[in-house]
Amino acid sequence: MQLSKRAVEVPASPIRRLIPYAEEAVRRGKKIYYLNIGQPDIPTPAVYFEYAEKYKPSVVAYTHSAGLMELREAFARYYAKFGVSVSPSQIIVTNGGSEAVIFAMSVVADPGDEIVVLEPFYANYAGFAHQLGIKLVPVRTYPEDGYAVPKKEKFFEVIGYRTKAIIFSNPCNPTGAVYDEAQLKTIIEVAIEKDLFIISDEVYREFVFDNYRAVSMLTFEEISNRTIVVDSISKRYSACGARIGTFVTKNKDLYAAAMKFAQARLCPSMTSQYGTIGLLTLDETYTEQVRLEYQARRDVVYEELSKIEGAVFRKPHGAFYIAAKLPIDNTENFVKFMLSEFEVDGKTTMVAPLDGFYISPNAGINEMRIAYVLNCDKLREAVKILGLGIEAYTRRMA
Amino acid sequence: MQLSKRAVEVPASPIRRLIPYAEEAVRRGKKIYYLNIGQPDIPTPAVYFEYAEKYKPSVVAYTHSAGLMELREAFARYYAKFGVSVSPSQIIVTNGGSEAVIFAMSVVADPGDEIVVLEPFYANYAGFAHQLGIKLVPVRTYPEDGYAVPKKEKFFEVIGYRTKAIIFSNPCNPTGAVYDEAQLKTIIEVAIEKDLFIISDEVYREFVFDNYRAVSMLTFEEISNRTIVVDSISKRYSACGARIGTFVTKNKDLYAAAMKFAQARLCPSMTSQYGTIGLLTLDETYTEQVRLEYQARRDVVYEELSKIEGAVFRKPHGAFYIAAKLPIDNTENFVKFMLSEFEVDGKTTMVAPLDGFYISPNAGINEMRIAYVLNCDKLREAVKILGLGIEAYTRRMA
Repeated sequence: MQLSKRAVEVPASPIRRLIPYAEEAVRRGKKIYYLNIGQPDIPTPAVYFEYAEKYKPSVVAYTHSAGLMELREAFARYYAKFGVSVSPSQIIVTNGGSEAVIFAMSVVADPGDEIVVLEPFYANYAGFAHQLGIKLVPVRTYPEDGYAVPKKEKFFEVIGYRTKAIIFSNPCNPTGAVYDEAQLKTIIEVAIEKDLFIISDEVYREFVFDNYRAVSMLTFEEISNRTIVVDSISKRYSACGARIGTFVTKNKDLYAAAMKFAQARLCPSMTSQYGTIGLLTLDETYTEQVRLEYQARRDVVYEELSKIEGAVFRKPHGAFYIAAKLPIDNTENFVKFMLSEFEVDGKTTMVAPLDGFYISPNAGINEMRIAYVLNCDKLREAVKILGLGIEAYTRRMA
Repeated sequence: MQLSKRAVEVPASPIRRLIPYAEEAVRRGKKIYYLNIGQPDIPTPAVYFEYAEKYKPSVVAYTHSAGLMELREAFARYYAKFGVSVSPSQIIVTNGGSEAVIFAMSVVADPGDEIVVLEPFYANYAGFAHQLGIKLVPVRTYPEDGYAVPKKEKFFEVIGYRTKAIIFSNPCNPTGAVYDEAQLKTIIEVAIEKDLFIISDEVYREFVFDNYRAVSMLTFEEISNRTIVVDSISKRYSACGARIGTFVTKNKDLYAAAMKFAQARLCPSMTSQYGTIGLLTLDETYTEQVRLEYQARRDVVYEELSKIEGAVFRKPHGAFYIAAKLPIDNTENFVKFMLSEFEVDGKTTMVAPLDGFYISPNAGINEMRIAYVLNCDKLREAVKILGLGIEAYTRRMA
């Protein structure tokens, strides 16, 4: 009676690995600035609750497996604002972006097949691929050039006959990079030359700064038949717990196949779907205000991080993350040090070691990710403490 | 650029296959009694909405990946009423029973492995297994003895070195059978002798009639380490659209492994979880009233079905289904006939062909499932129409 290999070998979430150290620190009365997870602090708009309350059917029944038509229509109108022309019948509402990734991987790859992933990447891609028996093959990006998409040759080095797709997020979690059209063209040309599907995770679409734009892969005609966009309302409306995402494709066969998996699991939460219809009534005033808040935070983190000697990074232009190489030997050990042995006036800062976002051996070992999910004042203090911690850790190691 | 085999070959939901015929009938003004799907008509208790409204956190954040502690505690108290002693740390709240099945299959079997299933079975098991690259191996049950669990030998005939588990539902969807302790002992002995896991789907636990009892697999000490119970609030509280289920096991390794998949997908809907905390405050008064309603409906369906000459079935004692062999050649053709060519005073009845609940070739071809999800008056008329339809269909075929 043995567990499956996929169960035993599944990578544990790297972000959660250090939780016991944090819990112990809290027990000892230490205050922690949590910059390690992407859980926004911004309040969920009240209209989510208003709509969830307004729609009280006598029976909370299964909805259409693709999601309520009214919600899919609202999503179609939302995408149109970004130059993406899709109909409700090209959208499947999912249990968060997570399930959209699972559906996307399921319809493009079989057990033993490979999907190329821009590395470092959203760590849960590894868990989903593992559950489905799919091998992720990394193409690395580096802090020195702001984790930009590398040249085509780097893709060609790893693409083989079992490679079925390329997956990436833009704006990028965990790096905050926003890929410009030249970088997207690299991905597009590789996909066309090697006949691959493209899985484009665009959940941070609206968090772009300094007049950068996150261009949706669905706006490129030449790849409309090979593209799946994965999306989620979690970050955009600070509604992670609603678990509403979307799987969007113009390829009828991909859509029909994903619908079969969607039908097997019946539907996403009806109550969350109604709440989301409410969220999608919000206009640009809301998103612009949130965007400016994140931009201000990004500026604070960038400014404070720039004071840390030896840290390697470029100013990120999207999402709410910044990744950097630190002047230390090992970020995981450093985070343990920060939680267990370091404090400034009873306070410390927790960041995410970036190695958990890589699958290349020993990659990212001295890199970290900051999620700027606290207000500017707290962020400034948190990053100052981080800098002092690096000095203390370095002295300790010397 | 080809879709994955798993996408192309996934079995489409058999229940949904006939929807276009129903839609066409409705367009032509025909009234349909829908006995084909398990969507209850009973109102969702108001306390679901009350709790969803009462708990309005400022941020709809990710919950614990195993679900809100308050909800898991409520589930633990609920299970205790059925003699199942589990702690909140042995429960994972899932996106409906569907996700609980996916987690259970994932942790016991790898791509290429096999899981034995009592046939006919809840059709979506096939979709989930297919998505995970797992092969379902059927052990048939038959209408003549009320779809009872067969002798051990029938299991031994199909169990091989790649067989990892046995899955079944009790009370059974689609047959309404409730397995007594002797039948459960058969499964238990097979699992122990062949060293297999047991996945016991108990979502219809409370719908048992005539003093029958649905005994949870978690009450048997000797298999507590090899058992996963899959559960859902969907039918119990007429809240299918809430999408709240549970994965329950006392095996620490299975639990830890399932938690890794749970962490990757983050959490179920927070709003639905709060609503479910409300539902779990309901006591036996509620469930007893619902149980009696279904028992009355079962009696009506059984009585009317007994008038159909040549129909083969036993009185079912649980769930809200009755399966039967009909005196016709092919149930799918019969259902199309009922929708397209037959009516009584502008009304017709839609049942589910049972062949979609089998994977054995040609099995169940003249069997059907009725879901008694309408009130007694409607049910009586619906089954009368079914009987008249069978006569008309038989004349037509003669």
